[in-house]
Amino acid sequence: MSETPDSAVHAVRTYIEQHRAAFLGDLAEWLRIPSVSAQPDRAGDVRRSAEWLAAKLTETGFTTVEVWETDGAPAVFAEWPSDDPDAPTVLVYGHHDVQPAAREDGWHTDPFEPTVVDGRMYARGAADDKGQVFFHTLGVRAHLAVTGRTAPAVNLKLIVEGEEESGSPHFRALVEAHAERLAADAVIVSDTGMWSETTPTVCTGMRGVADCEIELYGPDQDIHSGSFGGAVPNPATVAGRIVAALHDEHEHVAIPGFYDGVTELTDAERALVAELPFDEEAWLRTAKSHGTLGEAGFSTLERVWARPTAEVNGIGGGYQGPGGKTIVPASAQLKLSFRLVAGQDPAKIELAVRDWLAGLVPAGIRYEIVFGAPTRPCLTPLGHPALKAVAGAMSRAFDGAKVRYTREGGSGPAADLQDVLEAPVLFLGISVPSDGWHAPNEKIELDLLMKGVETTAHLWGDLPTALLATER
Amino acid sequence: MSETPDSAVHAVRTYIEQHRAAFLGDLAEWLRIPSVSAQPDRAGDVRRSAEWLAAKLTETGFTTVEVWETDGAPAVFAEWPSDDPDAPTVLVYGHHDVQPAAREDGWHTDPFEPTVVDGRMYARGAADDKGQVFFHTLGVRAHLAVTGRTAPAVNLKLIVEGEEESGSPHFRALVEAHAERLAADAVIVSDTGMWSETTPTVCTGMRGVADCEIELYGPDQDIHSGSFGGAVPNPATVAGRIVAALHDEHEHVAIPGFYDGVTELTDAERALVAELPFDEEAWLRTAKSHGTLGEAGFSTLERVWARPTAEVNGIGGGYQGPGGKTIVPASAQLKLSFRLVAGQDPAKIELAVRDWLAGLVPAGIRYEIVFGAPTRPCLTPLGHPALKAVAGAMSRAFDGAKVRYTREGGSGPAADLQDVLEAPVLFLGISVPSDGWHAPNEKIELDLLMKGVETTAHLWGDLPTALLATER
Ligand SMILES: [Zn+2]
Ligand SMILES: [Zn+2]
Repeated sequence: MSETPDSAVHAVRTYIEQHRAAFLGDLAEWLRIPSVSAQPDRAGDVRRSAEWLAAKLTETGFTTVEVWETDGAPAVFAEWPSDDPDAPTVLVYGHHDVQPAAREDGWHTDPFEPTVVDGRMYARGAADDKGQVFFHTLGVRAHLAVTGRTAPAVNLKLIVEGEEESGSPHFRALVEAHAERLAADAVIVSDTGMWSETTPTVCTGMRGVADCEIELYGPDQDIHSGSFGGAVPNPATVAGRIVAALHDEHEHVAIPGFYDGVTELTDAERALVAELPFDEEAWLRTAKSHGTLGEAGFSTLERVWARPTAEVNGIGGGYQGPGGKTIVPASAQLKLSFRLVAGQDPAKIELAVRDWLAGLVPAGIRYEIVFGAPTRPCLTPLGHPALKAVAGAMSRAFDGAKVRYTREGGSGPAADLQDVLEAPVLFLGISVPSDGWHAPNEKIELDLLMKGVETTAHLWGDLPTALLATER
Repeated sequence: MSETPDSAVHAVRTYIEQHRAAFLGDLAEWLRIPSVSAQPDRAGDVRRSAEWLAAKLTETGFTTVEVWETDGAPAVFAEWPSDDPDAPTVLVYGHHDVQPAAREDGWHTDPFEPTVVDGRMYARGAADDKGQVFFHTLGVRAHLAVTGRTAPAVNLKLIVEGEEESGSPHFRALVEAHAERLAADAVIVSDTGMWSETTPTVCTGMRGVADCEIELYGPDQDIHSGSFGGAVPNPATVAGRIVAALHDEHEHVAIPGFYDGVTELTDAERALVAELPFDEEAWLRTAKSHGTLGEAGFSTLERVWARPTAEVNGIGGGYQGPGGKTIVPASAQLKLSFRLVAGQDPAKIELAVRDWLAGLVPAGIRYEIVFGAPTRPCLTPLGHPALKAVAGAMSRAFDGAKVRYTREGGSGPAADLQDVLEAPVLFLGISVPSDGWHAPNEKIELDLLMKGVETTAHLWGDLPTALLATER
């Protein structure tokens, strides 16, 4: 990082200061477009959002800007090649669709009329994810301004999808269809957050997920529990026993082979997690939960970030109306999902679950199990030079603050990029937990938004050296 | 039974033969009244059914006949005192309401237009329970005719309720309100069946039932299983663990104290059960089930007749729609019921379940458990003189055939009579499994119906001696 002296930090800030007002005005314009992918009647707005972004990226200087169609909402692709033939290629991921929002959900202002109060911009999508996509437009301009370049030091690509809030149903197909054009030496996902306003962090991984539905069939119809109860197998009882067999008494997942290959946390990683100023009471409030329970031997953060899990998402069977009904139900259903961590292969997990299940279902009960499309886990090794570059650029933006590492317990389309493009995935986000993703009064802290701009302004200059180091 | 020689059997049959056509015509008239208690728009028909029966019982000779109002459908009470001041009092129980039925459910004939084909009368309620109530009208007349009496040898009472097919919601209150008028030395429930056409049997008991609903509350709302899964307790998982904890690996109920006081089957009783020509394949077809599973050490019949059980009637929690949803659910629900046998006290079972449950729910999960009104088990001791009288009368009706003993796995209002009136409950039924209770094309075998008439014609003469023996 020695090639960017303090004067560069100063120059970047000066440039950003000059363009901040126009930048925020543009962002507000984008946020006024209610690009809610989950609402069919907003499909026109999602398209308008894509076209607005495409026009703005062209204006920014991207030399190729295209709206890519999918079987759902359109994505935006943009490319700005470096003028350095040896430059590495970086692909930035984000999304331009937003969660639904309505004033009556508890918003103090119109969710699609951005409002700045006390240095915060309130609007649906301000943090998730329009603000965090948009800081790249000013970031690359600042990078050029302070380095005096006419093209970025990296081949910069952007893919901004339009269906993330609907589960990215067409994203993998899109990435596969355009794999060559999306090819990159590193992917930077711009759709996560930091630990807090005062603790800048870089996310280093997301869990994967595999999910299945299990149907259990007993009698051909609900039968009378007086006449037959106690002598025939009950599929709802079997469902309960399957659930109970998911874990042992230490809350370890008890499916044989489940932990095979798991990349265990190193002592160094555990120390980094333990360094974070974690307030379990506050975390429980966020989780709207009234107690912690998880795998023995791990802390709450380790459990949600770095440990695989088995979760019951849904269970049903028999009579669920008011009062009672004395039946042996004809069927029962289970929806299970398994969060996966680096080293776990969803295909092997599926086989392990199938084997385990076969041993649990008694004679007289027929069952079916169907798996959904899995999402692989992704993990940036702590020693990866690009990760160091991201952390370094962020530290410079945060006045030299120590940048720590977090992970994300959820799963996302980042894994599709990692899998299809075979590129390391890094995460860069400046949103904070109080930003209220998916909640009323979503906002972004404008000072942090500018730190995002600053971070990328430094990063594009730093990355070539860092990635060159990788290749050697 | 020596006081009724073979000539009595002959005399009863002759009398019945003479009155059979008129009797069947009357029954058909009653069956034309669609007294479906579960259908509010049939309330008028249920009342008409009660009034029709009351008129017919008056015509039969009962000296007191009353329609008793409840908070639901009316019941019919009738009394015909003996002219012998030492006569014991017998109360016959039945019901005049029927299950719903519609031609389009698969009936070959109009369910409310009785049709006789091949010695069977097809109609809703033919077996359950109008036919089995109605044989008492001809039975008592035959008893008088062949004994030359002007009043029965027992004080004969009838209580015929109008809501059995709706769960008898007001029956206990009715019995409590009229306990003095219903007081009896023995109750004869005329609402069960026999093993088969060729194996006459007397039912000697019904299981009781206690049921509860359990609500389990975890997070205040469904939360994201990626962000929080693996670190907070999941109420659907807890529901499954509760279900799994209901039984041990031998399918014994594992709730501490559950079996306390259970009246175990004697070797003699087990031998009697084993004597029955049980065809497990056929039984499984009736149960519409594809395998047997139950408490180790007991046969299928023992399991459903004489062993207490714990059954899951319903389970629900989290997402049950199509596809998946990666949540930790906010809540889960369980509906459990426990079949009880003689010696088990529902109040103690409730306490045992509450204690057991308290030990299963982890910190962070709040729960509620609510019990419904229990039904006690009832059991006629095999040595009871009245039971011997019933079996003896039946044997005579069945040409001296050996009468065997069964039980009923279900639970019914008989227990209310046993509890409130503190009288032994006996069961007398001539219906067979093929009669199709609650199903399309319900029918009664007319020859068996006449055996019911014959049985009571003998029984009222035999019971005084038998019950006198009890009192000594
Ligand atoms: Zn997002
Ligand atoms: Zn009935």
